[in-house]
Amino acid sequence: MMAGHVMTALRLGIETPSEAHIFMHKDCHVCRAEGFAARSRVVVSHGTKSVVATLYHVTSGLVGLNEAGLSEWAWGELGLGIGAKVSVSHAPPLESLSPIRGKVRGNRLDATALRDIINDVQAGRYSSIHLSAFITACAARALDYDEMRDLTRAMIDVGERIEWPSKPIVDKHSIGGLPGNRTTPIVVAIVAACGLTIPKTSSRAITSPAGTADTMETMAPVDLDLATMRRVVDKEGGCIAWGGAMGLSPTDDIMIRVERVLDLDGEGQLVASILSKKVAAGATHLVLDLPVGPTAKVRSYEAAQTLSDSLVEVGRAFGLVAKVIISDGTQPVGRGIGPALEARDVLAVLQGQAMAPSDLRSHALALAGALLELGGAAPEGSGMRLAAETLASGKAWQKFQRICDAQGGMRTPPVAQHHHVVKARTSGLVERIDSRKLSRVAKLAGAPDAKAAGVELHLRLGAPVSRGEPAYTVFAESPGELEYAMSYVALNPDIIGLART
Amino acid sequence: MMAGHVMTALRLGIETPSEAHIFMHKDCHVCRAEGFAARSRVVVSHGTKSVVATLYHVTSGLVGLNEAGLSEWAWGELGLGIGAKVSVSHAPPLESLSPIRGKVRGNRLDATALRDIINDVQAGRYSSIHLSAFITACAARALDYDEMRDLTRAMIDVGERIEWPSKPIVDKHSIGGLPGNRTTPIVVAIVAACGLTIPKTSSRAITSPAGTADTMETMAPVDLDLATMRRVVDKEGGCIAWGGAMGLSPTDDIMIRVERVLDLDGEGQLVASILSKKVAAGATHLVLDLPVGPTAKVRSYEAAQTLSDSLVEVGRAFGLVAKVIISDGTQPVGRGIGPALEARDVLAVLQGQAMAPSDLRSHALALAGALLELGGAAPEGSGMRLAAETLASGKAWQKFQRICDAQGGMRTPPVAQHHHVVKARTSGLVERIDSRKLSRVAKLAGAPDAKAAGVELHLRLGAPVSRGEPAYTVFAESPGELEYAMSYVALNPDIIGLART
Repeated sequence: MMAGHVMTALRLGIETPSEAHIFMHKDCHVCRAEGFAARSRVVVSHGTKSVVATLYHVTSGLVGLNEAGLSEWAWGELGLGIGAKVSVSHAPPLESLSPIRGKVRGNRLDATALRDIINDVQAGRYSSIHLSAFITACAARALDYDEMRDLTRAMIDVGERIEWPSKPIVDKHSIGGLPGNRTTPIVVAIVAACGLTIPKTSSRAITSPAGTADTMETMAPVDLDLATMRRVVDKEGGCIAWGGAMGLSPTDDIMIRVERVLDLDGEGQLVASILSKKVAAGATHLVLDLPVGPTAKVRSYEAAQTLSDSLVEVGRAFGLVAKVIISDGTQPVGRGIGPALEARDVLAVLQGQAMAPSDLRSHALALAGALLELGGAAPEGSGMRLAAETLASGKAWQKFQRICDAQGGMRTPPVAQHHHVVKARTSGLVERIDSRKLSRVAKLAGAPDAKAAGVELHLRLGAPVSRGEPAYTVFAESPGELEYAMSYVALNPDIIGLART
Repeated sequence: MMAGHVMTALRLGIETPSEAHIFMHKDCHVCRAEGFAARSRVVVSHGTKSVVATLYHVTSGLVGLNEAGLSEWAWGELGLGIGAKVSVSHAPPLESLSPIRGKVRGNRLDATALRDIINDVQAGRYSSIHLSAFITACAARALDYDEMRDLTRAMIDVGERIEWPSKPIVDKHSIGGLPGNRTTPIVVAIVAACGLTIPKTSSRAITSPAGTADTMETMAPVDLDLATMRRVVDKEGGCIAWGGAMGLSPTDDIMIRVERVLDLDGEGQLVASILSKKVAAGATHLVLDLPVGPTAKVRSYEAAQTLSDSLVEVGRAFGLVAKVIISDGTQPVGRGIGPALEARDVLAVLQGQAMAPSDLRSHALALAGALLELGGAAPEGSGMRLAAETLASGKAWQKFQRICDAQGGMRTPPVAQHHHVVKARTSGLVERIDSRKLSRVAKLAGAPDAKAAGVELHLRLGAPVSRGEPAYTVFAESPGELEYAMSYVALNPDIIGLART
């Protein structure tokens, strides 16, 4: 490969997360001489740094004949400034595609192949086309135990890893898809109050109306650096921090973006995704919350059991003791959907309010109980009782306040200025709640960016309801957003399905 | 789904072939209100036309807060003019992904599913991520006969279809990967001279130094519309036209772009790709040229046989009689690589020159012979003799000239002004010729855009060579391009592998 052509870098301000795009004039001498076709993969270098970028031809004056327009991710990775020079050349063949083609034909992926693939993903050498092929191949040709373990290890190895001074380090994870399933702050508070160490990192919403980090942020700062997180955990035994900037299993974040587009992640990928994050975060004991339901990620009990077995078995290879709690995922948990509304549910449970949603409470107690047993804080069979006592005594609530203070100070979740009550149009029994559409209403109302926005649900499955009774309330921070959500509601009268009695 | 938000369309001049991209300011009210995340799929509408586009956030002044920047493909599909208004809304879920997920899990794809998928691909509703998943799933979970047939039918049905007044209509196709394998003009001339009808459409190079259409274009116009093509075929019985603008099996072109990036096409996809184009072009009898070799598309005789069986069997479902000629694909065919250099080989064979490359000649005769037998112009076992006679008598050369005239006038292939002879560095026997690297040299020298550029090979596998003897000559239209190709040659002394004698 000869040295590349030197061009002037141009910052276009186009965001292409985790993937570099380069925009070059179709008539520029480099495109012509190198035969760079549309979507060619090219190496863009600046000093000692380089990225592999997908090429787009430009036919307008957007870039000059000697300019290379770069997307934000490429600009940042290369550390460019205005007028910087970059060199552009053909990308070398992506050797790690070869074992993926082998996997497609039915071969196994060995540890070396998986390491090469994940190294290439981490280096940005995989375009979304390559990522999609890798994800699809691993779903169509299921990964065996060794492949799951080797993939998990490769994903851990390209990222940061947090070490803790003492063990056990307990953790929990929910296998998503269920709105309002905000047990984490409650579980962390209970478990930490019982003396276990639980340094919890959570994510922000990507396509949902709220992630745990978004909800927690309405009660305390979550954007902690590693030093702050260590200080909080050292002092209080637990934290609820945003994990996105900690560099734990970074290729997981890259692959999840493509999995989401396809709505496809094979069991192997899911196992590696979860376990790599947890092992990298230093966990030794993990409880997994696995809701099963028609709109949840896992839709049958059989699939849940298989997944559970793989998680436990692969976890063991990393010294991680895992337990999976399979639960009912047929309707949203709690009442609120949206950061502040979910936080209010969490606070109601922690404060022992009479009106606290009992499903959120019992779900959190089941998870906390399992974690207390797993971490050795309660004998087998008595974890849930200890969890319930810790909650009822107010110790969990005290612990939660102390954690919030340690994270930078407790906050009161904001209350929306605008709301609209949606009423039942007929009388009957609630036979269906469309979680997906309720999430959409919450997002149209502004969640998660508008923290107070979202939906509060007044009904549960199986409950009787009379015509004109409140079904749910939509909250928004501006009249425009409220109107916007309500016009969607008006077009979707089937969000709550009623059976005539 | 509510009506979309109205924005002002902005033409950015970015080319995204067959895929729409939309660039919206991250802070625009639509992105915020709709929660349009990076890479969201959105519907962009203008009047009665709409496309599904992949969204990219912009953080610069590239687009205003009320502007929607559109890629060229989107701009063209929507038929926009300056200042046009478009409306933007969430794309509905891509329902046809569901059977693809089923395929990943091991289910079959039925005719309805394949039709829905191909309709969505044709409508531009599949991003490259979706296309990659479809292609990978079909390669990992091999298509059975019914699936191949239904995919072929779906691909035919979304495109144009040419009907011819009489039958048989014969055709040939080479299953690529071999530089210089330019038999088509010779085969068409022989077969048409023998009275068969062969309306041949060919492609231009995408990643190779020359496609058949590029080579033919140095001898006659190839950019014929359907009416002109019909007139040529009516008059001469054959043509060699560029098929790219005729709309035959258009989703094949879309999928090939992604297959190329992955270097992956399953047998089912390859069968559907070839047969859909040929059936749409009206062929009733087809000879397939299938070279087998380490750098060819098919690398083992076993794989060639399986592929051959599928092609013949699926072809039958469409009334297409197909025959596969499996041949040696271990080295380039002929001497030239590049449009004009390959044309010179073709002309040498047609004109019966003593120096004409014998491998190109015999390969073309084998294919023409098979076609003559298949189309009923020669009894079984005597096709090749008739082909040889037709060539030797000058009838094929006459026919070729008449076809060129009918297509708009015969041309003389251009001769490059600049060349450099690469000499053998040692003496020995030629044991390896790196076709892939030779193609790269030809492209660096300017092929296929510079028609006269390319490589002329002076050696064949197994030939003895003395130190200092010419190995190959590089041709270019400018000194810069020649220098450019030669610096690659200097870095790659292994293009011709010699065994010491």
